[in-house]
Amino acid sequence: MRLHGYYRSTASWRVRIGLALKGIAAQGAFHHLRKGEQRAPAFLALNPQGLLPALETNDGAVLTQSLAILEWLEETHPDPPLLPRDAVARAKVRAFALAVACDIHPVQNLKVLARLRAMGQPEDAVTGWARDVIAEGLAACEALVREGRGPFLFGDAPTLADLCLVPQLFNARRFAAPLDGLPRLLSAEAACLALPPFADTAPEKQPDAE
Amino acid sequence: MRLHGYYRSTASWRVRIGLALKGIAAQGAFHHLRKGEQRAPAFLALNPQGLLPALETNDGAVLTQSLAILEWLEETHPDPPLLPRDAVARAKVRAFALAVACDIHPVQNLKVLARLRAMGQPEDAVTGWARDVIAEGLAACEALVREGRGPFLFGDAPTLADLCLVPQLFNARRFAAPLDGLPRLLSAEAACLALPPFADTAPEKQPDAE
Repeated sequence: MRLHGYYRSTASWRVRIGLALKGIAAQGAFHHLRKGEQRAPAFLALNPQGLLPALETNDGAVLTQSLAILEWLEETHPDPPLLPRDAVARAKVRAFALAVACDIHPVQNLKVLARLRAMGQPEDAVTGWARDVIAEGLAACEALVREGRGPFLFGDAPTLADLCLVPQLFNARRFAAPLDGLPRLLSAEAACLALPPFADTAPEKQPDAE
Repeated sequence: MRLHGYYRSTASWRVRIGLALKGIAAQGAFHHLRKGEQRAPAFLALNPQGLLPALETNDGAVLTQSLAILEWLEETHPDPPLLPRDAVARAKVRAFALAVACDIHPVQNLKVLARLRAMGQPEDAVTGWARDVIAEGLAACEALVREGRGPFLFGDAPTLADLCLVPQLFNARRFAAPLDGLPRLLSAEAACLALPPFADTAPEKQPDAE
């Protein structure tokens, strides 16, 4: 398998964690987001959306969108599971993952921030936007798991929810979003980062890290 | 079951279509997004994220995030299926759904547009933002299905992808986004809207429509 990614792309990091948890080795292909390499014709031929990550499977299929890739991974390599067995519990885990993947990340990503700059917004307003979106989003995420028990977001083992949380907290620090009032999120993050599949796939450990 | 929604919320519409395709009758509970009713304490007690839709199941569980609700629906009521059987084909359908649900809708929703107004952007820049995000996002979606065959986005029957497409095209028209160059999307939309589960769940047919 071949994973097209970028060290600091949080969606790419989600997939790196999933592959590592499942014990799957994938070759890396690196595309520099800030230099716009995801819009190069050769990459657009693979993923017309021009977004990272994309996973080339051993059968030559090209899968895109981190959560679709992770659901495919779960269906084709079920152990260890990234989702619980009970349908309602699965829905709760997926809802948390989507609260990050839909409601936080796309509203604070590079593309949106570039759009704000192009509208003439000053740099402090642009980073303030990212910080506010992340802070509000993470506060809602904390509320979603307030009643639960750890060490991970949904109990004894990491799920799709933790795979989305850890990279989003990395972005939170990058934009200096406040992290107080998030005890469940931070303790789940600590439990995750004690595991090599999370720690070893961190942005700063990637071959394309700057 | 009880579906908390708003007639013009495209994420609520996705779930209305899914329930109708599966032949499930759900009671409606209506929350006016523009009046901020989704942030009322009684609703926040159900969904701390303060977003629509939310589905109360017959067992009293509260499910949130439209795609998590639809995956739950697929797992608990498998017929007719909203996803193909083959794992790669499922990943392609989910990637299309996420290309709408992550990369278009959250970047053009009411909340983001309100944030732009609060930054002092004039109204034409705000609606221009929505129009551009939708136009660029739909062009990428068209590219994802260019090679496929209809009448629906992924063949003979509607999938999760069509459930996301049709409401997004409704929003595209609302913001006057250009629809030329999207032949596959528009023909799939026409095939969908010929079916009662799509047509009868449209915003203008809801009890809370204005």
